[in-house]
Amino acid sequence: MTGREERPRGRRRNRGEAASKPVLDQMPWRQPVYQDPPIEPLDEEGVEKIHATAMRILEEIGIDFLNEEAKAVLKKAGADVDPNGDRVRMDRDFVMDRVRRAPAQITITPRNPDRSIVWGGRHTTFGNVSSPPNVTDLDHGRRTGTREDFRTLLKLSHAFNCIHFVGGYPVEPIDIHPSVRHLDAILDKLVLTDKVIHAYCLGTERVEDAMEMVRIAAGLTHEEFDARPRMFTNINSSSPLKHDWPMLDGAMRMARRGQPVLVTPFTLSGAMAPVTLAGAIAQQTAEALAAIALLQEINPGVPVGYGAFTSNVDMKTGAPAFGTPEFMRATQMSGQMARFYRLPFRSTGANAANFPDGQAVWESMNSLFGATTAHANVIYHAAGWLEGGLLASMEKFVMDCEVLQQIAYYHQPVVVDDATLAFDAIAEVGPHGHFFGVAHTMERYRTAYYAPFLSDWSNFETWMEAGGRTVHERANTLWKKIVAAYEAPPMDQAIREELEAFVARRKEEGGAPTDF
Amino acid sequence: MTGREERPRGRRRNRGEAASKPVLDQMPWRQPVYQDPPIEPLDEEGVEKIHATAMRILEEIGIDFLNEEAKAVLKKAGADVDPNGDRVRMDRDFVMDRVRRAPAQITITPRNPDRSIVWGGRHTTFGNVSSPPNVTDLDHGRRTGTREDFRTLLKLSHAFNCIHFVGGYPVEPIDIHPSVRHLDAILDKLVLTDKVIHAYCLGTERVEDAMEMVRIAAGLTHEEFDARPRMFTNINSSSPLKHDWPMLDGAMRMARRGQPVLVTPFTLSGAMAPVTLAGAIAQQTAEALAAIALLQEINPGVPVGYGAFTSNVDMKTGAPAFGTPEFMRATQMSGQMARFYRLPFRSTGANAANFPDGQAVWESMNSLFGATTAHANVIYHAAGWLEGGLLASMEKFVMDCEVLQQIAYYHQPVVVDDATLAFDAIAEVGPHGHFFGVAHTMERYRTAYYAPFLSDWSNFETWMEAGGRTVHERANTLWKKIVAAYEAPPMDQAIREELEAFVARRKEEGGAPTDF
Repeated sequence: MTGREERPRGRRRNRGEAASKPVLDQMPWRQPVYQDPPIEPLDEEGVEKIHATAMRILEEIGIDFLNEEAKAVLKKAGADVDPNGDRVRMDRDFVMDRVRRAPAQITITPRNPDRSIVWGGRHTTFGNVSSPPNVTDLDHGRRTGTREDFRTLLKLSHAFNCIHFVGGYPVEPIDIHPSVRHLDAILDKLVLTDKVIHAYCLGTERVEDAMEMVRIAAGLTHEEFDARPRMFTNINSSSPLKHDWPMLDGAMRMARRGQPVLVTPFTLSGAMAPVTLAGAIAQQTAEALAAIALLQEINPGVPVGYGAFTSNVDMKTGAPAFGTPEFMRATQMSGQMARFYRLPFRSTGANAANFPDGQAVWESMNSLFGATTAHANVIYHAAGWLEGGLLASMEKFVMDCEVLQQIAYYHQPVVVDDATLAFDAIAEVGPHGHFFGVAHTMERYRTAYYAPFLSDWSNFETWMEAGGRTVHERANTLWKKIVAAYEAPPMDQAIREELEAFVARRKEEGGAPTDF
Repeated sequence: MTGREERPRGRRRNRGEAASKPVLDQMPWRQPVYQDPPIEPLDEEGVEKIHATAMRILEEIGIDFLNEEAKAVLKKAGADVDPNGDRVRMDRDFVMDRVRRAPAQITITPRNPDRSIVWGGRHTTFGNVSSPPNVTDLDHGRRTGTREDFRTLLKLSHAFNCIHFVGGYPVEPIDIHPSVRHLDAILDKLVLTDKVIHAYCLGTERVEDAMEMVRIAAGLTHEEFDARPRMFTNINSSSPLKHDWPMLDGAMRMARRGQPVLVTPFTLSGAMAPVTLAGAIAQQTAEALAAIALLQEINPGVPVGYGAFTSNVDMKTGAPAFGTPEFMRATQMSGQMARFYRLPFRSTGANAANFPDGQAVWESMNSLFGATTAHANVIYHAAGWLEGGLLASMEKFVMDCEVLQQIAYYHQPVVVDDATLAFDAIAEVGPHGHFFGVAHTMERYRTAYYAPFLSDWSNFETWMEAGGRTVHERANTLWKKIVAAYEAPPMDQAIREELEAFVARRKEEGGAPTDF
């Protein structure tokens, strides 16, 4: 800031076009690096106590692993596996030995290597909203998602430079049969974007198909794919204290091939976890480390991440709340635990609002303030989430991206030197002028400040003359323009055909089994 | 948090009433204390460089003091005063000697001593929007302010426990003649609220009348009034590098009677200050310290505060921008300078939006994030501000208070002990239950979490059944309920009559002279 700010490149010239104004005048692709130290509500003793409680949970209470293979691996490694059930108890030496095998930093390389991302240290990344069944926009209102909505949200995810990875489905494409949905959905993700993508752990075939398609899309041999992270998955424990079959199966398959696994317990305090934050974080930690220990046993050194999603329920109604003060503190405490274990940290941008209004924004911003001050390396659901994750909003997506870009801009170094101290300019202007015309200003004004693509700073009269439109109404116009101007990232024709042939073949084979 | 949270007292019982639900179910009055360390973008060298530049500005360029009395005081104290103009140059030893006389912490005691506030250290306070000429609400739209609007906003300022002081006029009551406006306005402030109030420095009579009325309202002798801070003022420099007559006159009058003066240069980077933040903060510092040195010369040890309002203009249009990344960094840098000089620090909650929508909220939240991470002790305009300060919004006032209350809640200690770690509860529930019914939850759930008064966490169906109303629409309902249920704080009848007699007498005398 104040000296070497980044600036929307569209201001200068967009891809060699004439001076036509681009639809989206944004900052260039860049992975932000936190400039401030993390905020740490726990002292050293607090961290140790939560760690000790997590270890006691793993040793004395244990975790249910609903997966025979996982239990066999852990039993062979020396864990105490209930012969008549699913309970697994691990002692702290075993757990910590395995956790220490994990790398503190991960680089994931997608089919476009220029879109590689780093998870760890002070690096952060933002992802789109993932997994809601419903979608909304101001024109058509709330409805179940379709492949068209899914593609629209992928185009937005691709278009915005502040979206660094594509998480789960930005909306569930309900109009595709579940047996083959993953094939069409992953094809769309790989064709419409070139950023790092996520695959769901929802059954063997789906995970294996996803890995194969990412491999094909990047033009890799199997060995090249396995050699480094190319994609990732995220698994949730079934809190309290349980890991389900498909999550474990998928995570183990990804881990065997060296692909990163984020482990994110969904510990709603007061419902699936203790009503007190310290207890909820202890339980979250036990659940996360249990799966991480398993994966490190299977493939020592495989990249994993510690995920946090501890929030609380409204105790009057049982409804989950997000972006609350508790959510912020839980996130910061979780970040401390992740650093204690030297693991990349995943957090979330979330809210419980039903409309892209002020509440949606203050809850999302609280979430993002919590996540960034916790030094989260992976911020899921950072754009487009509404209604506690049940709803993707086109307008909220664009609004969130304006906020995300500001966060990226904020995390640039502040420069203090003779040029920025500007003594000579202050002397030149003195008490009887202004700075608009002086050389010090003229040399810098084009790139001096953050330039929004959505915020409207015009005065009331000008704003009214332009229609007096709220920010969500302006976002409605903008997302449609962005989608209309969308250009797919280049993909080799042979690769495209190979991907489509794979999808066709797997569809012929029936895709993945479904329960219905 | 998680153990000794504060909770809306309405949950228990409101003023001994039966269990009727209060209109506003809020947290009790409390002055928040920052729990986290400040965020400091400058290293020690950066602070020193800005300080050194500010000192050079004061020594080599100087500040125009458009006030003969101020110039006489400074000349007598040894400053270099231009005999043919208004320029005053002060050397750094003089300035720093005078600045060091100021107390690092201030307590201000209003007519209700239970509403005393502390400025300094980790203490913070939030104030209402101040000084816009216009007011808006969803029912009637934007219009110039009247005494009725002014009173409505005072009632809101009184009703919300998260508003700790009443700044300038929350909207200008344009329907009262300027010569007597201050008399009616200060009467309303003193009658409708019992919190610390501000008085404008807009002419000798207005300042003297305000001090006299605050004295009468608190039932104090002149000696008691002068003995400690009872109210405050805020002056702005006329940037660049100029202090105008009325501000200096009022500030000197307040200082002589021991009343606190905040000095807040309004240094819009790129217009009235250098385009680079470091230079803008150096200029802001020079302007603030110049006035502070004068006031400490007049009354050594008088309470003063260092105010920051450095933001930037949109270089395309010249419109001021607020709540930008630059605004946040400028605020944090300013907080560092205030701590360097051991002065209480004043900042601002601001935005440039024209409607209480998502943009208004993200800009306000950026401002508040900047202010709180800068450890601002005084946060002006924290509720109700829109349109760069030209517009007070009833709905935004209520929305902002929901955010302010969350900030207050966030700044409570996180407790980690055996009770909050909840190992026994986790063991009791195990992997096959939930925490809703266990004793650990039942003992705590009533007071466990932040409870909003405006946020709606219901699911989409319930929200739609209740009308599908946005947060600004709900805020519209709530502010009207709060105003309808408003009860004035008690005031002794004799004091009320004395105040009214004072106002009547001063009106007969013509009030304050006006230019028109």
